[in-house]
Amino acid sequence: MRYTPAGIPVSEGRLAHQSVLVENGIERDVALEIPVLALGDMARWLDSAPLGGNLKVNGFLAAKGRNAKMPVIHANTIEYLEGNENGTILQEEG
Amino acid sequence: MRYTPAGIPVSEGRLAHQSVLVENGIERDVALEIPVLALGDMARWLDSAPLGGNLKVNGFLAAKGRNAKMPVIHANTIEYLEGNENGTILQEEG
Repeated sequence: MRYTPAGIPVSEGRLAHQSVLVENGIERDVALEIPVLALGDMARWLDSAPLGGNLKVNGFLAAKGRNAKMPVIHANTIEYLEGNENGTILQEEG
Repeated sequence: MRYTPAGIPVSEGRLAHQSVLVENGIERDVALEIPVLALGDMARWLDSAPLGGNLKVNGFLAAKGRNAKMPVIHANTIEYLEGNENGTILQEEG
């Protein structure tokens, strides 16, 4: 976990998602690995999540930066899950 | 628009999104530009959307490929909008 100059906690990591979804009427495997970022209390929750644990994250996507188009999930809520139907934390930073 | 070997229409483009959302209790500008892909009937809808027009897209995110982690929106539904609260098409391919 790091802190902004204003003292706000920031935690970053990567979420992995795997599922089977329907596209054009046909089931397909879906895989996604995407950076996740959380501020404030959510940063503490993300920071406390066990590596390889299962999370349900709600938030929004925003570009990583002006010159980096990779979308990042900004977590507004984080739930720890026991199953593995949602994101798995691959790596935590900060 | 292109076709898979099985004859399924595929349309690809890029969506741009801009909005103001709340993160950690504070409003912030959100910008995102992300590839979009549609199959079948949705490919025809995406292909018919005017460049610079406004769309509401529902679907899911999946990695572009095994070695390309950039998320792509797979459109399951596409609505043409008159306002500009949702995605704008920047480029269409296929």
